[in-house]
Amino acid sequence: MRDRKVRIAYQSEAAAEQFSPSTDRLPCTSFEEVFHSVETGAAVFGVLPIENSIGGTIHGNYDLLLEHTLSIVGEIQLQIVHNLLAYPGAKIEEIRQVYSHPQGLAQCERFLRSMPDRKVVATYDTAGSAKMIRDQKLKDTAAIASERAAEVFDLSILKKSIQDFSHNLTRFLLVATSETEPIATADKTTVVFSVPNKAGALFKALSVFALRDIDLLKLESRPIRGKPWEYLFYVDLGMNCNDIMGSRALSQLTEFASSLRTLGTYPSWKELSSETKQKDSQPSPSI
Amino acid sequence: MRDRKVRIAYQSEAAAEQFSPSTDRLPCTSFEEVFHSVETGAAVFGVLPIENSIGGTIHGNYDLLLEHTLSIVGEIQLQIVHNLLAYPGAKIEEIRQVYSHPQGLAQCERFLRSMPDRKVVATYDTAGSAKMIRDQKLKDTAAIASERAAEVFDLSILKKSIQDFSHNLTRFLLVATSETEPIATADKTTVVFSVPNKAGALFKALSVFALRDIDLLKLESRPIRGKPWEYLFYVDLGMNCNDIMGSRALSQLTEFASSLRTLGTYPSWKELSSETKQKDSQPSPSI
Repeated sequence: MRDRKVRIAYQSEAAAEQFSPSTDRLPCTSFEEVFHSVETGAAVFGVLPIENSIGGTIHGNYDLLLEHTLSIVGEIQLQIVHNLLAYPGAKIEEIRQVYSHPQGLAQCERFLRSMPDRKVVATYDTAGSAKMIRDQKLKDTAAIASERAAEVFDLSILKKSIQDFSHNLTRFLLVATSETEPIATADKTTVVFSVPNKAGALFKALSVFALRDIDLLKLESRPIRGKPWEYLFYVDLGMNCNDIMGSRALSQLTEFASSLRTLGTYPSWKELSSETKQKDSQPSPSI
Repeated sequence: MRDRKVRIAYQSEAAAEQFSPSTDRLPCTSFEEVFHSVETGAAVFGVLPIENSIGGTIHGNYDLLLEHTLSIVGEIQLQIVHNLLAYPGAKIEEIRQVYSHPQGLAQCERFLRSMPDRKVVATYDTAGSAKMIRDQKLKDTAAIASERAAEVFDLSILKKSIQDFSHNLTRFLLVATSETEPIATADKTTVVFSVPNKAGALFKALSVFALRDIDLLKLESRPIRGKPWEYLFYVDLGMNCNDIMGSRALSQLTEFASSLRTLGTYPSWKELSSETKQKDSQPSPSI
């Protein structure tokens, strides 16, 4: 029998804690595994980073949302602080290579340029880079990772807060199986669609939102595999897809789109209080 | 004195050769260096991969186009064939890790899943991964790279053509300083713009093309650094920005956009003949 205890599957511990500090947590080593854990019932929710305000979208997670059948049921934002970690005793001038996830590297690009003669190596995750330094006792290597990773892998922090922009936010999605009940307070919807190969096709598709004054909060394109230079559009909208306006807009979109799938309708992230935890959140501007 | 001899700066040798087989070539170790070589006059042209039909856009190169002042003056498409390379004598069942650029890994995802217990490591370039195996004599490591990389670094090809989709095309841009003369045969234009934070703003911006039946060939969004959840839009259009319709469309776009820059107007890639070299090219569909 499956264990249906409420559990959150995650790769980012800080994000899982932010969603629900008291919920049991299930650490995963890949985003694929987060999906798998929720699909098999090992966890009820999964947490996925989807976008960083500096590095941009984590496109692979959009691809995974499409490949799997989970729904988006919530979102949060976290302020990201990157640190330069190294083996205890290592000095910053002895560092010859820096490991991190491409997003971590992108978010500290200016800082990295200020370190002469360093080789930059992209890895699959920030914590994994820290672990490698610990496991292999690498003394000429640093990792860009969180303070928490320094604690867990017993590394020194050579330099704190090295991200290029202080307003460095990552938005995470909470995903669950579609059996989960609709959320009454939903005011944001994510859909993915394609359009026919005709001039003005995307413009017509967007008209169904624009002419109803529905905010378009984000638009991302991804290739359609096997159809070179044709695209899927992932769109975040300021609407509940179950209310009259939202359902009419999506119904009209089926007239202009070649394919359409609703990935979820959920409450948008809001600054609930002026407390430290959420002080860096930003309301989503429309585009 | 600067050497103004015509030279192409590149990271992908195959793409540089496709653009102009007889032109002198200047190999670069990063895309930054390609920009730098053209800006300093060490090369007249630079070649940049911008998009793969499976892995998607190389977003970092859009960011570089914005940071620098070079113009796009041409594009080509290349059929991509990935191979699994290893140290001579290594066997596929002994491989414990696979190195490649994230795009190379993404394009061979299904193949990688079929290799049990392998660790996948993202690196900065495919050829560099091959070089590392040669330099460090790594016998449990494979790289995803070209046949050419196998020749250069004297590695064995464990398996040929491992990409998940046979129609795996990469589109490359040719960049040059803006001094270069306008190209009369230009029928494609790339612009980057931002829109005000209002519902319907992107829809209005796209109207300047849709209402003139100008094909929108590609739309990509990137974060505006320092302004969380605001975006720049990179758009490829089927028009010459110097003819009457193109210049009117862009002039009207300034009414709706908060910022606008034309990155280049150039001849779109066309299948010139049925010869082998270009047999896999596809006409760009509109969206």
